[in-house]
Amino acid sequence: MMKRSDRLVAMTNYLVEHPMELISLPFFSETYGAAKSSISEDLAIINKMFKTDGIGYLESISGASGGVKYIPNVSMAKSEKIMDQLCQELEDPTRILPGGYLFMSDILGNPGTVRNIGRLFASRFAGLNIDSVVTVATKGIPLAYAVGDFLNVPVIIVRRDPKVTEGSTVSINYVSGSSKKIQTMVLSKRSLNPGENVCIIDDFMKAGGTINGMRNLLQEFDANVKAIGVLAEAEDDEEDRVVEDYTSLLQIKNVDSNKKHIEVVKGNYFLNN
Amino acid sequence: MMKRSDRLVAMTNYLVEHPMELISLPFFSETYGAAKSSISEDLAIINKMFKTDGIGYLESISGASGGVKYIPNVSMAKSEKIMDQLCQELEDPTRILPGGYLFMSDILGNPGTVRNIGRLFASRFAGLNIDSVVTVATKGIPLAYAVGDFLNVPVIIVRRDPKVTEGSTVSINYVSGSSKKIQTMVLSKRSLNPGENVCIIDDFMKAGGTINGMRNLLQEFDANVKAIGVLAEAEDDEEDRVVEDYTSLLQIKNVDSNKKHIEVVKGNYFLNN
Repeated sequence: MMKRSDRLVAMTNYLVEHPMELISLPFFSETYGAAKSSISEDLAIINKMFKTDGIGYLESISGASGGVKYIPNVSMAKSEKIMDQLCQELEDPTRILPGGYLFMSDILGNPGTVRNIGRLFASRFAGLNIDSVVTVATKGIPLAYAVGDFLNVPVIIVRRDPKVTEGSTVSINYVSGSSKKIQTMVLSKRSLNPGENVCIIDDFMKAGGTINGMRNLLQEFDANVKAIGVLAEAEDDEEDRVVEDYTSLLQIKNVDSNKKHIEVVKGNYFLNN
Repeated sequence: MMKRSDRLVAMTNYLVEHPMELISLPFFSETYGAAKSSISEDLAIINKMFKTDGIGYLESISGASGGVKYIPNVSMAKSEKIMDQLCQELEDPTRILPGGYLFMSDILGNPGTVRNIGRLFASRFAGLNIDSVVTVATKGIPLAYAVGDFLNVPVIIVRRDPKVTEGSTVSINYVSGSSKKIQTMVLSKRSLNPGENVCIIDDFMKAGGTINGMRNLLQEFDANVKAIGVLAEAEDDEEDRVVEDYTSLLQIKNVDSNKKHIEVVKGNYFLNN
């Protein structure tokens, strides 16, 4: 029999490695050689500390097929702190690129930041029975995996160009929202089962043409788009916007390449909670 | 003051969220309101359980600026089990694509599998003082982030095409090893500081032309390539191979598109331990 202190370390690890997964009490009992009553006490301690840490909670499902599920959930205070810091980092005027774009590759290259962003979206979408996360190459990929990690579901990558390693694909043409150019998107036929619930994740949205394209492509797979999450939205394209029902963590306002000034504020994630 | 049971949950979480980071004992003491001696005992329990679980260990650094560091390290038994299962999954003949390629997108879309792969490379490269992980778009990206997660270092993505959001870039032309075609790679100027130690991560290597291209590009940044990790290598291109010093997790042998047969075995990761 394992001591409580040992069990707590092992069970904490197991739970954070298996978010959104129903784990039966007998599984813990057998794995750690402890009575169900002891396991229940352990889980109560873990649940309390996850809440204190602001990283989520344990959901108990009763009945014969019941057990416990770790639901990632970042507290609002923690979310705001994370995003306030990110806003500040992004407001550095040396980030302004020609055309009013913003250099964000370093931010998206930081695994800790990416994990935090994934955790926030997963918190918001945890109740939607998401079966998979969909993104488009390239910059959205790390964010999509971070969300997939916390929701414990597969990630599917839409490409701009077909590749032999994808096997047979479905492709659509779409009109980019801001440049009005015709573009192509392809997705491997094997990637989705009909009727899956998906969430779309991307790093940046201007008018939303790319995300709308993904939505159309996903229709070909009979997928249900349950949620759309973007790290940053550009404020200045609100009139042309073709996507309405999205969740943004950041809003980029007033990019002035001449005056080297930029304003970054928190997105609608923080409005409708 | 927090109880030991509460501290163990919180500290386990903190450590797994901050791999490869030196954390001082006073930090834990203050955060959890406990004497240093209690914290030391907690850490001993955590260390023991991390080893039992086969996920790594705590390294103690003594002295005034000392503390403790969580080093991810997968036991060889666990690594072999993970890879044996992956080999089996990949040997499914429906994965064979025209040209002897293999459909792996579903495998690379599974966050749990991707994390396991990242953990293995991080275990092997943890002692090399890696400053950043470099990959090339698209399929290597999730693996690179998983490695970056466990090594707690940034990820840098080399692209095939320049994009405005990258700012100014350095580009090179290189000859692909198997097709002998001339191709281009670009990397944002801001991505690396001179003299950084990097590891290259990719999903697949045939002759190694792409990886060699990355190595040449990284020379332009005065980076030191300390390690190269590929998930799968193709056996049949050994003669043309332009990269020698790499670590592979899998080796793909005898792809026969006509007979619908394929053999996948463990890579050199499991030889030179």
